[in-house]
Amino acid sequence: MSLHTTSLTEAASPRSLHALFAEGGLVRAAGAHSALGASLVENAGFDAVWASSFEISAARCLPDASLLTMTDYLQAAVQMQEACGIPVVADVDTGFGGTMNVAHMVREYEREGVTAVCIEDKVFPKMNSFVSTDHTLVDVETFCRKIEVAKSVQQGADFHVIARTEALIDGHSVDEALHRCERYAEAGADSVLVHSKSKSNEPILEFLAGWDRRVPVVIVPTTYPNWDAGDAHRAGVSMIIYANQSLRATVRSVREVLETIRRHGNSAPVEDKIASVSEIFALQRLDEWLEVEE
Amino acid sequence: MSLHTTSLTEAASPRSLHALFAEGGLVRAAGAHSALGASLVENAGFDAVWASSFEISAARCLPDASLLTMTDYLQAAVQMQEACGIPVVADVDTGFGGTMNVAHMVREYEREGVTAVCIEDKVFPKMNSFVSTDHTLVDVETFCRKIEVAKSVQQGADFHVIARTEALIDGHSVDEALHRCERYAEAGADSVLVHSKSKSNEPILEFLAGWDRRVPVVIVPTTYPNWDAGDAHRAGVSMIIYANQSLRATVRSVREVLETIRRHGNSAPVEDKIASVSEIFALQRLDEWLEVEE
Amino acid sequence: MSLHTTSLTEAASPRSLHALFAEGGLVRAAGAHSALGASLVENAGFDAVWASSFEISAARCLPDASLLTMTDYLQAAVQMQEACGIPVVADVDTGFGGTMNVAHMVREYEREGVTAVCIEDKVFPKMNSFVSTDHTLVDVETFCRKIEVAKSVQQGADFHVIARTEALIDGHSVDEALHRCERYAEAGADSVLVHSKSKSNEPILEFLAGWDRRVPVVIVPTTYPNWDAGDAHRAGVSMIIYANQSLRATVRSVREVLETIRRHGNSAPVEDKIASVSEIFALQRLDEWLEVEE
Amino acid sequence: MSLHTTSLTEAASPRSLHALFAEGGLVRAAGAHSALGASLVENAGFDAVWASSFEISAARCLPDASLLTMTDYLQAAVQMQEACGIPVVADVDTGFGGTMNVAHMVREYEREGVTAVCIEDKVFPKMNSFVSTDHTLVDVETFCRKIEVAKSVQQGADFHVIARTEALIDGHSVDEALHRCERYAEAGADSVLVHSKSKSNEPILEFLAGWDRRVPVVIVPTTYPNWDAGDAHRAGVSMIIYANQSLRATVRSVREVLETIRRHGNSAPVEDKIASVSEIFALQRLDEWLEVEE
Repeated sequence: MSLHTTSLTEAASPRSLHALFAEGGLVRAAGAHSALGASLVENAGFDAVWASSFEISAARCLPDASLLTMTDYLQAAVQMQEACGIPVVADVDTGFGGTMNVAHMVREYEREGVTAVCIEDKVFPKMNSFVSTDHTLVDVETFCRKIEVAKSVQQGADFHVIARTEALIDGHSVDEALHRCERYAEAGADSVLVHSKSKSNEPILEFLAGWDRRVPVVIVPTTYPNWDAGDAHRAGVSMIIYANQSLRATVRSVREVLETIRRHGNSAPVEDKIASVSEIFALQRLDEWLEVEE
Repeated sequence: MSLHTTSLTEAASPRSLHALFAEGGLVRAAGAHSALGASLVENAGFDAVWASSFEISAARCLPDASLLTMTDYLQAAVQMQEACGIPVVADVDTGFGGTMNVAHMVREYEREGVTAVCIEDKVFPKMNSFVSTDHTLVDVETFCRKIEVAKSVQQGADFHVIARTEALIDGHSVDEALHRCERYAEAGADSVLVHSKSKSNEPILEFLAGWDRRVPVVIVPTTYPNWDAGDAHRAGVSMIIYANQSLRATVRSVREVLETIRRHGNSAPVEDKIASVSEIFALQRLDEWLEVEE
Repeated sequence: MSLHTTSLTEAASPRSLHALFAEGGLVRAAGAHSALGASLVENAGFDAVWASSFEISAARCLPDASLLTMTDYLQAAVQMQEACGIPVVADVDTGFGGTMNVAHMVREYEREGVTAVCIEDKVFPKMNSFVSTDHTLVDVETFCRKIEVAKSVQQGADFHVIARTEALIDGHSVDEALHRCERYAEAGADSVLVHSKSKSNEPILEFLAGWDRRVPVVIVPTTYPNWDAGDAHRAGVSMIIYANQSLRATVRSVREVLETIRRHGNSAPVEDKIASVSEIFALQRLDEWLEVEE
Repeated sequence: MSLHTTSLTEAASPRSLHALFAEGGLVRAAGAHSALGASLVENAGFDAVWASSFEISAARCLPDASLLTMTDYLQAAVQMQEACGIPVVADVDTGFGGTMNVAHMVREYEREGVTAVCIEDKVFPKMNSFVSTDHTLVDVETFCRKIEVAKSVQQGADFHVIARTEALIDGHSVDEALHRCERYAEAGADSVLVHSKSKSNEPILEFLAGWDRRVPVVIVPTTYPNWDAGDAHRAGVSMIIYANQSLRATVRSVREVLETIRRHGNSAPVEDKIASVSEIFALQRLDEWLEVEE
């Protein structure tokens, strides 16, 4: 019995995001920032991993503000994809600059086996959407050009480009978000992500009511966590990303465990509240590797 | 008020491990595998970070068996050291091969600002000490040569080499562990780590009774977690490493949070059990970075 | 007109080494240590690139002695493969340690698109074959196990493993080299490389006379450069690697150009002896990238 | 006798660019893209190494257009600095984005031991100055802010910031170049680089005539290679960078050697025109490393 859906000696080609959407069910993704995190997302029954730029930059103690480079984000996404049999969706911010950067990004991600990326319509360098600061958008034409280029340089059929609009984040109307997403879909986006930091799901409901469903809609309900996944699906959402709860769980639990050890003077009180060493061995596929050795 | 002991614009030279030992108090270290983890170790009041090869390889879903390279471990240790103002002690396994590899390792780690490393006396490639398999030791002369070379190529005064014996792990006697540690100290080791996977602290007590205290003794009480830190200090221990509890806390909490979200259909039930987005912003030093921008 | 056999927007899957050998002609490879070098090898009409560990370590000013890590060598090989449409054959020394390291190596190289590797039968850490020092071999069984594992973990049909014997380098007889290569072929090696530092091609001729041709034979005639490629092919050689002439050309020419500039006080005397800026632009595929931009 | 100014076991702190300028002589730098190249620059008697973004991107067969990331350029610059005892001046283009990116860049470069960087006043992503395309400049205030931030986050006294104006490259007047450089010096730049692609040195002479010499002037005479270094120094130039001749020598010589081998059928005709294997060993410091081993 293995925790893993694939073995060391079997080909591990995850299904494409196209294929997941084609089935018609709700696609559920959760954020991660490491191979281990991706493996836990897969183990918990999610359909995809969100290689979150917020999580990845936080793991480096740096703001989510285009400080880490494509090299850093690519390395993290690739390590995640290597560790699991479900697709990793890479959060690639603005595409790391202009049109040529987008082309370079698609070539590198696809070659490395990461077949889904999400590009957003903010200017480079960007700032995390939940920070109270300016979130200037690039104009529609410029962003459509990025999408066209992304789709034109991909080499296989599986590569999937999610176009993310930050229109609502930047204070624009749902109409503007709809307009942008329509244009992005025309430019070739395989799906659209409409981001919102409203405490309610109403802007999203309004968006869905106006959307012609030409491509699937993705949401990230960080600020409206009460919306039931089934209800969202019936309202027209095709994919939900639980973007950063893994990271936030990590910070809370590591803090508590370390403070307990520090205060108590030994680790005995935490030992039964944390995973065993054997559980870690299983995540490392130790038995499979020892078989290789024999 | 900042979570951090240093600011972005101030020099952040951590104290050396020599300096910590010279104070005479117990040095407490906790394991981490990322910059974020190192920051949490510092925040919880520990004196040093243990850049654990078990944690770092587990974060990649790979066994702790010399599969990741010096490049991988160095990158992780450097990212940790960048994120905190306390010393990072890098777990460098066997030193990544032979004598020349040790020389190369010291040059690279010291140049990158990691001033404490722990080398162990197993053959390369090694296997994690808690795995039930062979743990063959190199002969004493060979390992002493590694220590001598490590000390001879260091360039500054701060670099600290912990010599770790796996004698007890490999089934040898406490006398053998003592003999090896004496020789390692003569060869120039700045401190010694005597590792044990006994469920009791007795082998360590026996070791301490026979130790002439020429250099400090370090322990990793993973399998004997009940020993009080103060008692250990009085018995002659200078440094305790809580090597992998952070990782194990992470796995347990991320698993629980993801399974709850998956089962419940939204993240509402976990929101008050995990860190807030603002807490993550603080760990990213967002306010300090926004000041740079202004 | 492009210098490149593939365009930015076309799939660039190089042919496999299996396919090259199947054609029956002589396969000619030349050494490189960078993407640029690989591109020049392809431009000059060679059939394959040799990602030489001697060249790659020299480019870092480090001895070819297992100091650079698999991470370093893999990065270099991948950058070479990205830049050309012919197969890159990665010189992976001993496979970077034991059997598990070989398994890890094959998984990483194949996943990254490098489908040919050459493993040698020396102990880790190794020293470059042309250095007058010990070159101890691992025993035949141990090395056969590495080959079996390499072949068992590969996922696609294209992956090619060259087994290299250093028997002649270590002072053994041609019979020992033959014996080892036979065993390596039985263990699954796709071809064998018999290395020699003799000033004459006689040991190789003797080897070829005794070889049953069950798998192709590869040679590296650094110390016997006068042997005509056609003659070698007729004698039974399937692949010749010109392993380090690119590097040695680089050192000579850069030295001369820099010394001339330094002595002369300007670069005028060298300008017509070096490539033009436009020629560099062509190697960078500048025109193709500018088209992406438009 | 060693080719190297420093030994493996000695501290190798290169002098700062401040110190070189303070001596009053002409500072001569040459471009490189690898540790080996930096070592050859030092061996040829230059005072500094230019870690050229044109060379580094060409070594990857990619245009010099902000496609490679800070991670790539930093890695290259650090490897160069490790290999030589003279300062490496890192060509950091626009600083890799906005003000926060510049702050991040300075922190990373300084921490890694690269104490001189050159930032230019073009918008991100930039295109190489010799390409016939737009080279839009950022406004003066924005660039001054980058310089101020760069100088405010540096931690030691040695870090040196060259502010490079592309005013002449973008078709502006010498007066505009002077105006910009004056403002950059006021903002804290330690020296200024005025770039030109004129076939004559006249724009530079005009610039020097109008310059108040508050900080040193740096030039890159790629398109006006006939100007004697002594004459340039007397006219007011403090540093000359021979930016890409090493790369161009490499391409020409490697091409010729490979084509000769390919055509001739063996490497005999080139053997006396290229460096010997022993010369490579010397650049790898093989003897020093073998001493470590003993």
